[in-house]
Amino acid sequence: MADTADPIRQAIQQLRRLPGIGEKSAARLVYWLLRAPDGTATDIATALQGLGAGVQECSSCCDLTGADPCRVCANQQRDTTTVLVVEHPQDVIAFERSGEFRGRYHVLHGAISPLDGITPDKLRVRQLLERLRGDTVKEVILATDPDAEGDTTALYLARLIDPLGIKVTRLAHGISVGTEIEYADALSLARALQNRVALR
Amino acid sequence: MADTADPIRQAIQQLRRLPGIGEKSAARLVYWLLRAPDGTATDIATALQGLGAGVQECSSCCDLTGADPCRVCANQQRDTTTVLVVEHPQDVIAFERSGEFRGRYHVLHGAISPLDGITPDKLRVRQLLERLRGDTVKEVILATDPDAEGDTTALYLARLIDPLGIKVTRLAHGISVGTEIEYADALSLARALQNRVALR
Repeated sequence: MADTADPIRQAIQQLRRLPGIGEKSAARLVYWLLRAPDGTATDIATALQGLGAGVQECSSCCDLTGADPCRVCANQQRDTTTVLVVEHPQDVIAFERSGEFRGRYHVLHGAISPLDGITPDKLRVRQLLERLRGDTVKEVILATDPDAEGDTTALYLARLIDPLGIKVTRLAHGISVGTEIEYADALSLARALQNRVALR
Repeated sequence: MADTADPIRQAIQQLRRLPGIGEKSAARLVYWLLRAPDGTATDIATALQGLGAGVQECSSCCDLTGADPCRVCANQQRDTTTVLVVEHPQDVIAFERSGEFRGRYHVLHGAISPLDGITPDKLRVRQLLERLRGDTVKEVILATDPDAEGDTTALYLARLIDPLGIKVTRLAHGISVGTEIEYADALSLARALQNRVALR
């Protein structure tokens, strides 16, 4: 089956590597691209190529970004007194989509999960505490996922941040239990922000 | 929202152009690529880039291919007396996957649909008839889709091929293997009854 000289089979094999894309979906995408306007495949290829080199972590919020600081941290219009802590970069996109939050973010790049070897030192916890040591931040909103690992991480962070005299809140139960934030709808996320409750 | 300098947003916007991939799926793919082994995004990008230039129609069967003649037409092991006529290049992949067919293909690149402006001269009908004029081909299997356009196309081709003294067959329609009768659609059940075969 492997025929490296055939561009169509090559493209199908490569697209199959993507999560959730099997051989049939890959073939459908490739034949769509072959019928698409000139330059479509090239534009997509160029954008994917750009992911390789240009992406780094923001030195302030640890979100993945093409330029340091990231768009949110560089935006002077954003409220610097509130920091919303999330597990993954895609959670930032979900909150930006809801349009409800005007503060800054902090991306942990995961949640505490001792069974998977993810201890707090594997996350961007140290960087978060460094940000909070100044007297700018008045509130930290913990928006980790509503599952065992996310709740553990939120409690762990709440205990660390409490002595700094900063208000700590957790997202309200506007998002249904078991839903990953990345896939939550914009309205539920907005409600969850409005109804956030103080942890202590 | 448009930020051409940001490689992540760029990649998400580009992947969203693909059929069946919305903003959330595109974001999921991009963040998967950012965590994937080095070179994954580049490999995929290179394969997509290859789709632009190197793809053409096989001068014999009209399938899309990287080299003319295509793999099937170049394969001397394949039976040259049987031609299986399909609407789309991806149908060839489906038949190759089934492993049941050892002859050659002919790709029409569509089906007759006057309402959509697709008349026989828009399809690769002329090329099919040219192939059949020699005395090599003994049977043409019409494997157009089992819908109004596919049936129309099959009847049209059968009428053209019949005078050439070549056997014309159509794929059997019925319930697919593994389908419970309870869940089969009415049309397939009707066809399955019409085309019933004697057990002995």
